[in-house]
Amino acid sequence: MNDTMDQSRMCSVGLLTTDCYDDLGNFVIQADEAGHDFIVTPISHPTFGRVLNQDKSISEQEQRNWKDRPVFDRKDLVIQSAEWSGRAVGLLATWIQLDSSDPEVRICSELALKQEMDWACHISLSGLIFPALPTGSLFNTARVINSAVKSMSYTQFLVRVPLTDKKDVQGNLSWKQWNRFRTLTEYNTKIHVALEITSELPSDKQLLEMWLAEPIKAVIVPAEIFVENAKGYPVLSKPHQKFIQTLMDKMKPDMIVTLPPTQIHKKATPQSYSDYINYLNRHLPPLNDVDQFATGYQDFLQAPLQPLMDNLENQTYEVFEKDPIKYQQYEKAVYKALLDRVEHGSDYVTTIMVVGAGRGPLVNCCLRAAEKSERKIHVYTDLFDRLQNAKADLWGDKVTLVFADMRKWSPPTKCDILVSELLGSFGDNELSPECLDGAQKFIKEGGISIPANYTAFASPLASTRLNNNVAAYKDLEHYETPYVVMFQQVCELASPKALWSFEHPNTQGDIPADGDPMNNLHNTRYNHVEFTVKHDMIMNGIAGYFESVLYKDVIISIRPKTHSPGMFSWFPIYFPIRTPVQVPKGSTVSLQFWRLTDTKKVWYEWTVTVQGTNGEEMTTLPIHNVGGRSYYVGLTQSLARQKNAASLAKLPNRNEYCESDYAPVSKYNGLQHDNEL
Amino acid sequence: MNDTMDQSRMCSVGLLTTDCYDDLGNFVIQADEAGHDFIVTPISHPTFGRVLNQDKSISEQEQRNWKDRPVFDRKDLVIQSAEWSGRAVGLLATWIQLDSSDPEVRICSELALKQEMDWACHISLSGLIFPALPTGSLFNTARVINSAVKSMSYTQFLVRVPLTDKKDVQGNLSWKQWNRFRTLTEYNTKIHVALEITSELPSDKQLLEMWLAEPIKAVIVPAEIFVENAKGYPVLSKPHQKFIQTLMDKMKPDMIVTLPPTQIHKKATPQSYSDYINYLNRHLPPLNDVDQFATGYQDFLQAPLQPLMDNLENQTYEVFEKDPIKYQQYEKAVYKALLDRVEHGSDYVTTIMVVGAGRGPLVNCCLRAAEKSERKIHVYTDLFDRLQNAKADLWGDKVTLVFADMRKWSPPTKCDILVSELLGSFGDNELSPECLDGAQKFIKEGGISIPANYTAFASPLASTRLNNNVAAYKDLEHYETPYVVMFQQVCELASPKALWSFEHPNTQGDIPADGDPMNNLHNTRYNHVEFTVKHDMIMNGIAGYFESVLYKDVIISIRPKTHSPGMFSWFPIYFPIRTPVQVPKGSTVSLQFWRLTDTKKVWYEWTVTVQGTNGEEMTTLPIHNVGGRSYYVGLTQSLARQKNAASLAKLPNRNEYCESDYAPVSKYNGLQHDNEL
Repeated sequence: MNDTMDQSRMCSVGLLTTDCYDDLGNFVIQADEAGHDFIVTPISHPTFGRVLNQDKSISEQEQRNWKDRPVFDRKDLVIQSAEWSGRAVGLLATWIQLDSSDPEVRICSELALKQEMDWACHISLSGLIFPALPTGSLFNTARVINSAVKSMSYTQFLVRVPLTDKKDVQGNLSWKQWNRFRTLTEYNTKIHVALEITSELPSDKQLLEMWLAEPIKAVIVPAEIFVENAKGYPVLSKPHQKFIQTLMDKMKPDMIVTLPPTQIHKKATPQSYSDYINYLNRHLPPLNDVDQFATGYQDFLQAPLQPLMDNLENQTYEVFEKDPIKYQQYEKAVYKALLDRVEHGSDYVTTIMVVGAGRGPLVNCCLRAAEKSERKIHVYTDLFDRLQNAKADLWGDKVTLVFADMRKWSPPTKCDILVSELLGSFGDNELSPECLDGAQKFIKEGGISIPANYTAFASPLASTRLNNNVAAYKDLEHYETPYVVMFQQVCELASPKALWSFEHPNTQGDIPADGDPMNNLHNTRYNHVEFTVKHDMIMNGIAGYFESVLYKDVIISIRPKTHSPGMFSWFPIYFPIRTPVQVPKGSTVSLQFWRLTDTKKVWYEWTVTVQGTNGEEMTTLPIHNVGGRSYYVGLTQSLARQKNAASLAKLPNRNEYCESDYAPVSKYNGLQHDNEL
Repeated sequence: MNDTMDQSRMCSVGLLTTDCYDDLGNFVIQADEAGHDFIVTPISHPTFGRVLNQDKSISEQEQRNWKDRPVFDRKDLVIQSAEWSGRAVGLLATWIQLDSSDPEVRICSELALKQEMDWACHISLSGLIFPALPTGSLFNTARVINSAVKSMSYTQFLVRVPLTDKKDVQGNLSWKQWNRFRTLTEYNTKIHVALEITSELPSDKQLLEMWLAEPIKAVIVPAEIFVENAKGYPVLSKPHQKFIQTLMDKMKPDMIVTLPPTQIHKKATPQSYSDYINYLNRHLPPLNDVDQFATGYQDFLQAPLQPLMDNLENQTYEVFEKDPIKYQQYEKAVYKALLDRVEHGSDYVTTIMVVGAGRGPLVNCCLRAAEKSERKIHVYTDLFDRLQNAKADLWGDKVTLVFADMRKWSPPTKCDILVSELLGSFGDNELSPECLDGAQKFIKEGGISIPANYTAFASPLASTRLNNNVAAYKDLEHYETPYVVMFQQVCELASPKALWSFEHPNTQGDIPADGDPMNNLHNTRYNHVEFTVKHDMIMNGIAGYFESVLYKDVIISIRPKTHSPGMFSWFPIYFPIRTPVQVPKGSTVSLQFWRLTDTKKVWYEWTVTVQGTNGEEMTTLPIHNVGGRSYYVGLTQSLARQKNAASLAKLPNRNEYCESDYAPVSKYNGLQHDNEL
């Protein structure tokens, strides 16, 4: 099992040369013998650069002829045939200057670039690397490449980007150029990054993490950044090791090494550099439980009505129920509550009602807590088929299964403790507030709810992959729908902040002691949170999390800082935004969030603004999901409708749909009031 | 004729009261008798404000009952029935606080607002005015209104916005709040502005002009801003008069006056204020020729394949040919050229070739110029049916009609002067460069072209109306297509700057002396222009113009600063952008523009960036119309294709399609080179 897994985490390692080999086949064989999986070589000889005619080495007529018919002389080609294409990535000419101030140089550079690209596609090279973005204006470079990659299908296009700019190691100049380029090219999915690791790394961790949100397809590790270890072999510094392993872990890039023109590490052989990279690759930190569980679903948008969800249901059902942490925390919460509420040795039988019991584990938690605390309990719970077996086999008389629809049920007694697990990734997004309002009438005066409260958190997020996954749908609806996502290739611009909380039982007086609330206005929320951002960054969406106090100090959380270790029942939630937003250094990103309701549904609206250091308005996005037009969770009792809606933000195998006994449509009816879609 | 026109420019005048009349009918009659067309009145009494319960005047239960069922007590209503709806506009309650920091006040405000709106729609009020945007945060206000107007159809929704903020008369704080609001509501076409004129006006003209780009449906002129004239009557200051008349002229808003609670202008009667407004309205500056010609087409996008274009063709055909200025300038240019090139009294017969002669006026220009200059000429021109009559009737032997396709024609002699009129609104956008390259072989050594050159200009533009006209198509293509538009409700952020020029004859050596160029690369262009913007503004698109030197100092221009007075043959061109862009005060807007070509077509690409005072990247838009994917002008010889493409940027009745004898497809063929869509 572990071996298979490691295989799936292995990166190819290639050898890059800037020399032009006459006998490319020989070079491929040598590289192969030294343990490289592929090679990276110039496509054409520097002689081809004469077409720019900057040194007037060819006649105007010759140049004009070439412009009329830009084809290669065979002698200009390094990669002359398709023979090695499958094992070769081509380097585009370094003398190409698409943003030259000389129009003639620009035009000829464009022709030359296209000529090389055409040739690469013709011989089916596996990839192409564009040498460098210009340091100043790059508009024409962006325009030309954006247009030229359109006709590429098999061959991958990569832009070589240094991790840091030599003149700006502690800043992100290099990323900014890349960011400008990809914004101009509108996140063109045919353009990837070949990230070149530089010898100096920025000390600010975020400047490294930003790259994890980028479409990195290859990582170039030049021989020059290796250092010599005590024995004279080339190795990388600890920070380099760590960052490269993170890249391997999250992006599975092709790794590219070089050989120094002259020996720079005493004991280095042609194998040393690739061997070392392979060594790092084999020694990635092992996957934790959550990672293992999430394998294959990273950055995958779990969207409404997605067939995958149904497939997963059977596949991972057993896994979920065995979340080691979630049920452990519930048990601990019930245990502590029993200790607090009932004296040791008392005969008092604590009535516990388990709502949305699903498949039984919550009932087990209660029973275990009772045993451990040596308190007497009786559990009422709603019925699912499988629970009947559990009752017969394990629970006996301590548990009463309620066959009736709980909404219409009159319990023989009210409960001391109401235990529920109706939380979504954003806390309240699976209608826990509404469901618990409905169940509140079953709680005795002074009784408690487990969970006692839950809080939604949000933070601005950068992620090319998530951006593109949403954009691929090409419609408004998908830009205004939250998704459950296991984040991988993302970068948070700042730590999440709390938006709002719900407390249970609700003591705000909005809910009649014995009955249902007439309207759901007490469950609406509105808040905004602000984040001041240290570096120039980009924002593609909003990450959402929850944190819940089950009882006193017993919490469950998926908020990164307080994440319950090993708990894998919830992935984060992702709210897309309709346009990527530039976030200049020092500016303030403000997220506006609403939880809204009408008689039939609950939905979120959100928007983003960016203000400069002087409060100037840099960006304001339109409010997303106006009136729940693209996404909502239904409050009506039609299960079908709820299923579609509620499943939106659910983990694959969870199916405790909230049967809200809730605000019948006729009760809440303003004059001509119509919020319907 | 003039009377009819003035009628079409007349605005309604209404009377606004903030008093709550018990007998609304009586008030309507009084207002009518004092010359008002409609009234503006509160919908409900201030008593309705008790629902917020800020003074605890009602019980919690009463408030809760109202929240469950938010309907009016009849006694709270000022407009109690539909009786006066057609003549009444409602004022929404001023105590509504949608952005209160108290959630209870926010929620009740939202309910109250919707209750008033529901009532207004129920009784079919013609309009509703929201009293004021909050001065601080307005996110919830935007969210509520954006959502609430969705169900409105007949009743108009207006937001009252003061022209200037009292604390910021020389700035644009008030506009900025409005701008933020409408950005959040995504230019919701159901939300309009009721612009309230303030007593002080900003001295910077641009701060007034910004409002001309806004969706102003009503203009409120409070009695308090009137001053007393020598005779004691209320009048407005000259700057007020001028601005209000501009608004009347460009927006045709409903005008709204008020009556002061106590007499503030000695001789004022209840009629005085509306009389004065009517007076201003009757004395608008008369329409000039261009305006008259454009009536009904202001801000109208002349788009490809639009039926209107064909309709117009017959309707305005005569008008166009009589453009008093265009042909006068051509005549002057030929006249001056003849004087310069031929000595007085010489027998030399100047050969003039008229290309794209259309319907003959250019030939007439040449003949008149010859007569006036007393020089001998012979004109060759390509054939259109109607020219035959002209030849028979007027021209006689001085003109040779060429029946052959000019591309295949071998002229008996080359010409001294090539006269053409192939310009589009952006200069080169109707392929004048390509056509004249083709015709260049007919020019003698030392011969000239009229025009001698033309230059494209561009500037950033704000316009809600143009923004919405493009957005209405809901597709990418329309956001990436330039349109010919007679601007009206627009504001230029800065004066246009020159992008590029074309010179004729082309002496760059790219065109073989006797034949066609092999490629069209010499007609590609790339440039960028930067504009530093004085005030916080918004940008919705790019305005384009041309300026052309026909001969020496004889020019024609549609660039505002140098516009040939009275010339109406060209409207400006408008390049949309895909997202409105915030332009903070002091920031730099940069427009990138390309004119591009392949073997079959010519197209533009463009993009916009905004940088802060420290060079920080605030906004970068993706490059528009990549590879001509949404819009191009065809170079092939299929007339059908050209017609669609070229007509894009054409004035309605012009049909001299360029028959470019140009770069056959087979000539320009790189290796696998494929730029096709």
